Amino acid sequence: MRQVAVIGVGSTIFGKLPEKPVKDMGRDAVWAAIDDANINPKEIQFAYASTSFGANVVGERILTEAGISDIEVFNVENACAGGATAFRGTWYAIASGLYDIGVAVGVESMTTSPVAGKLIPPEPGDLLGEMGNSAPAHFALSMRRHMDKYGTTLEQFAKVSVKNHRNGCLNPYSQYKKELSVEEILNSRMICDPITLLQCCPNTDGAAAAILCPVSLARKYTKKPIIVAASVLNMGDYEYRWKDLASSDMTTKCAKKAYEMAGCGPEDVDICELHDAFAYSEISHYEELGFCPYGEGGRLIDEGITEIEGRIPVNPSGGLLSRGHPLAATGVEQIAEIVWQLRQEAGKRQVAGAKVGLAHTVGGEVAGLESGAVAIHILKR
Amino acid sequence: MRQVAVIGVGSTIFGKLPEKPVKDMGRDAVWAAIDDANINPKEIQFAYASTSFGANVVGERILTEAGISDIEVFNVENACAGGATAFRGTWYAIASGLYDIGVAVGVESMTTSPVAGKLIPPEPGDLLGEMGNSAPAHFALSMRRHMDKYGTTLEQFAKVSVKNHRNGCLNPYSQYKKELSVEEILNSRMICDPITLLQCCPNTDGAAAAILCPVSLARKYTKKPIIVAASVLNMGDYEYRWKDLASSDMTTKCAKKAYEMAGCGPEDVDICELHDAFAYSEISHYEELGFCPYGEGGRLIDEGITEIEGRIPVNPSGGLLSRGHPLAATGVEQIAEIVWQLRQEAGKRQVAGAKVGLAHTVGGEVAGLESGAVAIHILKR
Repeated sequence: MRQVAVIGVGSTIFGKLPEKPVKDMGRDAVWAAIDDANINPKEIQFAYASTSFGANVVGERILTEAGISDIEVFNVENACAGGATAFRGTWYAIASGLYDIGVAVGVESMTTSPVAGKLIPPEPGDLLGEMGNSAPAHFALSMRRHMDKYGTTLEQFAKVSVKNHRNGCLNPYSQYKKELSVEEILNSRMICDPITLLQCCPNTDGAAAAILCPVSLARKYTKKPIIVAASVLNMGDYEYRWKDLASSDMTTKCAKKAYEMAGCGPEDVDICELHDAFAYSEISHYEELGFCPYGEGGRLIDEGITEIEGRIPVNPSGGLLSRGHPLAATGVEQIAEIVWQLRQEAGKRQVAGAKVGLAHTVGGEVAGLESGAVAIHILKR
Repeated sequence: MRQVAVIGVGSTIFGKLPEKPVKDMGRDAVWAAIDDANINPKEIQFAYASTSFGANVVGERILTEAGISDIEVFNVENACAGGATAFRGTWYAIASGLYDIGVAVGVESMTTSPVAGKLIPPEPGDLLGEMGNSAPAHFALSMRRHMDKYGTTLEQFAKVSVKNHRNGCLNPYSQYKKELSVEEILNSRMICDPITLLQCCPNTDGAAAAILCPVSLARKYTKKPIIVAASVLNMGDYEYRWKDLASSDMTTKCAKKAYEMAGCGPEDVDICELHDAFAYSEISHYEELGFCPYGEGGRLIDEGITEIEGRIPVNPSGGLLSRGHPLAATGVEQIAEIVWQLRQEAGKRQVAGAKVGLAHTVGGEVAGLESGAVAIHILKR
């Protein structure tokens, strides 16, 4: 397999943009990535696009809008891991030699989606969903279990949100740019005890794109190619769901494969963008990704280890909590953030000297607790 | 690249099945394909799943329901070409050496979809759609143009529907099993002049699946491996749309690539399953696929050339018109039909001695006339 590099990334500003059609946001992200990669749009040979609630044939619509035609297009969906799935597909088509240059684009308009302002409803036949096992309910149970099992405190979870909102203030693409205190977070509206409003990711609109090519061609386009060292996508184990509510095997298994593929370990990660759908999620993912032993996620946040200046900066972009979470755009936006960080172009939120970045998304884990997907990518400069 | 074979296929019976959840139909098709391939479900290493209107993470739901877990799953969407896109993804992952055994599954519950009983509505910003350019309207214009340009008659279009409904009577998986006369078809309710009801594909629920592996392993599982000789997926050319309403470049371009890849031409095709979303479509696709010169599609149907006993049997399954059209299931069902035909297992609709089969789907061509996808696969025994 050939080594593959990211040569350009682009993003819209994230936020509430109900007036922006999905295809326009996608086009803007693709154009930004084309500019960044300094390529001729005609050089793009294929695309992977993703949306969860956007239009059918979303990739063809976006590319037509961007003035690109007559290429192969895969539209992929994996709930919140859809963008990462698109990135993985693009990576593989190049790594395997099918194509040389492709674009991955993820887009979502949550404010105009059928689930705008609602919980994602249970599918027909989803008994747990019918009984109220929505995403916040599931994560509230998991958070409570983490507290009981490991002694993690409400304050520790709240500090995740404090950190990510502080980071979001430094990111021009972020939906929220407002610092919050532990008290504000804990005193915000109760959504599902013990999860308060400011510990939940918001509804967000936006798009992100990345352009990839073989490392052997990358220098033609950029002085700072970023290498894809690992790409792993895995569905949740049927068994995972009731083994331990405090953690999920899905991420642990996927991370093991990704570290093996990249030839590195969690100790080598200089910057991580992970799936903080809820503040709880970030703490549990610290542990599942191997940044600390199980039960010590709370300590990591207390000691500032995951701050931008810490040993393992996590979500310097602001994460899902502050930058926002346009479902299928998130996975590609994480890649864009890591590319900016590894190129030392992340401005005020720059992690000094970052060389290895890890992107992690989880999709559909709690849709009726049936199943879901985890994707992990490791990038290196 | 490795040669890849289809070693098992499976399908639900197509029809109006609103009581059947998407994941149950998908599971039934996957189980049928597993039985047919005579493999242990644990041997399946990855999956491509497709639905247009079904649930998010549909592949993970189907596999979990089928008792398969902890594998890589891509959910793909390309409107009516979604099933073919899933098949192409599965083929490529094996051809390129990433995996050895995978399943492609397509599923749709049109009767419970948000568009049940309606026209698919225009997306925001789709001005042509807002002005009434729905699928029947677009194809009615194209049909009229074909009549004006080439002298094709209403009776010739109706005969496509007569043929496909006759074939459907011979297919146990078909939604409709009723012979119709030219008069019945022409006198059925006018949908969009000159297209009458019985020249439109119906709303259908159903699922189909196919299991693939390298040719080098196929004999372990089956005495009749069917080889994938060509796989091409292409988005519509931005230009195609107003060049000539009577025909579409999308299929022509895709067919050219597919014949080249398979090392054969239209004259070598023994059986074809093509995208007869409307009776008109079948006539125009005869021409675009090279079965006859442009303008002579009507003659093909008049002369019985595309009947089961003819020189190029088209849609012996009954096609979309009679077998039915559960959007993302159709592309995989076409593969299943061709596999049965090439194995000489198609019962009363068997095409004698068929050795080469071609499957053709078109997706999203008329969604605001913006863009779409065409997929062609050529299979050989």
